[in-house]
Amino acid sequence: MAKLIYINGQYLPHHHAAVHVEDRAFLFGDAVYEVIACIHGHLADERAHLDRLERSCSELQLHMPVERETLRVLMRELLRKNKTSNSAIYIQITRGSAKRDFKFPSPDTRPTLMMMTPAFDFENNQGVLNGIKVKTVHDIRWKRRDVKSILLLPQSMAKQEAVDAGCGDAWMVDDEGFITEGSASNAYIVKGNEIITRPVTTAILKGTTRNALQNLCAGLGYKFTERKFKPEEAYKADEAFVTGATTLVTPVLEIDGHSIKDGKIGDVSKGLLKEYLAYVEGLRMKQVSWESGL
Amino acid sequence: MAKLIYINGQYLPHHHAAVHVEDRAFLFGDAVYEVIACIHGHLADERAHLDRLERSCSELQLHMPVERETLRVLMRELLRKNKTSNSAIYIQITRGSAKRDFKFPSPDTRPTLMMMTPAFDFENNQGVLNGIKVKTVHDIRWKRRDVKSILLLPQSMAKQEAVDAGCGDAWMVDDEGFITEGSASNAYIVKGNEIITRPVTTAILKGTTRNALQNLCAGLGYKFTERKFKPEEAYKADEAFVTGATTLVTPVLEIDGHSIKDGKIGDVSKGLLKEYLAYVEGLRMKQVSWESGL
Repeated sequence: MAKLIYINGQYLPHHHAAVHVEDRAFLFGDAVYEVIACIHGHLADERAHLDRLERSCSELQLHMPVERETLRVLMRELLRKNKTSNSAIYIQITRGSAKRDFKFPSPDTRPTLMMMTPAFDFENNQGVLNGIKVKTVHDIRWKRRDVKSILLLPQSMAKQEAVDAGCGDAWMVDDEGFITEGSASNAYIVKGNEIITRPVTTAILKGTTRNALQNLCAGLGYKFTERKFKPEEAYKADEAFVTGATTLVTPVLEIDGHSIKDGKIGDVSKGLLKEYLAYVEGLRMKQVSWESGL
Repeated sequence: MAKLIYINGQYLPHHHAAVHVEDRAFLFGDAVYEVIACIHGHLADERAHLDRLERSCSELQLHMPVERETLRVLMRELLRKNKTSNSAIYIQITRGSAKRDFKFPSPDTRPTLMMMTPAFDFENNQGVLNGIKVKTVHDIRWKRRDVKSILLLPQSMAKQEAVDAGCGDAWMVDDEGFITEGSASNAYIVKGNEIITRPVTTAILKGTTRNALQNLCAGLGYKFTERKFKPEEAYKADEAFVTGATTLVTPVLEIDGHSIKDGKIGDVSKGLLKEYLAYVEGLRMKQVSWESGL
């Protein structure tokens, strides 16, 4: 059964889920979003995602249409109505609908809040289970990649280029030849007990899964090193992987046709996935007390 | 009276002009557009705009939803129904509506064609008549600015920053300190009988008005020089102006608080506007024979 979609106070059947053509997301790409994985009924790293959503809005002078607590209730209501626990929740906030004009509309323009619950079966995620191949492509995005905006056409083009080459994702490479990130994930290589990933600047998104992983690494005896790396270094790594809200920890077995080590899923990637899921499960068990602290 | 809006075969009242939230323009900024000025009932430089629309689609592997001849009929039908000659026509083509996925949807996905007729009274355009002030801002856009995509949030932010500073438009400046273009226009300075504007690469949009102007310059005894220039050079120019489908030739009287010459509209800008309007009028008079050659 097609799921309901939430738009500005209404829970609409899929085929009625429409927005006005003058919505600024449709005309200007003027919107931000988040995707939160629902794992065993628990919204993984919800607080970090909502923090980032609020930050994205703030950086663009875009007003949150509802308070955080209200949004949390609406998210749960949508999940409940859609009778699903194997799903993610997608949240998009746009600057609202107004006569087309490059300057921002008047401050009393109501932002558009849209939410849907795409299928996400984390236990049967083929990428996570079997690993993926990656293709590097030129990073042609705008400069504010720390803001989770819907200016996603370049990522979509990158992903399509990777798919056309028989790969599961693209890693984007900046003008200096350094990898920035995946089309919708952060990129990592492993060398010995060192986990290497690009430092957080405006060049990449500060991943919530990346953040959780960084905190987990210390306890696991891994060194989490934030520095830039090039494809040539990645080809020779012991392991490689990507993280994201729905990609979790997905092993990368091949980059640009180069097998990473023996081309099999490595112990570090496997261990990190297990630890990450245990961390989310731990949050779930603590949910009541944790939520009360929000 | 609110105007009708065309969406995929339907002429809809303004408040019913909606698209599905899964339209890729709304979720990914995955769409291209054109704006054509209607001057005395004539669609100015229509052929050049439709050429560019087709090129934008082609660069993004996006299919034109209808043949050019059909599109031309639909545009005229919308103008006729909206009983307007003081308007522009806005055309947007998106990759259509499909389940959210970074990779392109299956090739049989129907693109979305949306058209509307925003008001455009070229004889009472305050910017054209009185000139504007400009503020320079950092150009943070993606790298494919030759494609007229709807990834316009950075331009919108630039425009808003300019408006906040009491200016009519922003001129964007690349990492090397050179001006690229205006938020929705090409940028020019004048020195003696030389008209200077940035060469066309992927860094800027190849303006149709720019193109027409380039062709007019030779006959007017102006030298049309394509080279990059910095704000510091612009501050000291004899004149400055911008061109665009609806900005026509708009004089720039002040940049970053520096008056251009005496801060009055210069003869070159004035002359070019007159010549451009005469050129469009000439096309209108030749319309029947010209259109038969399309």
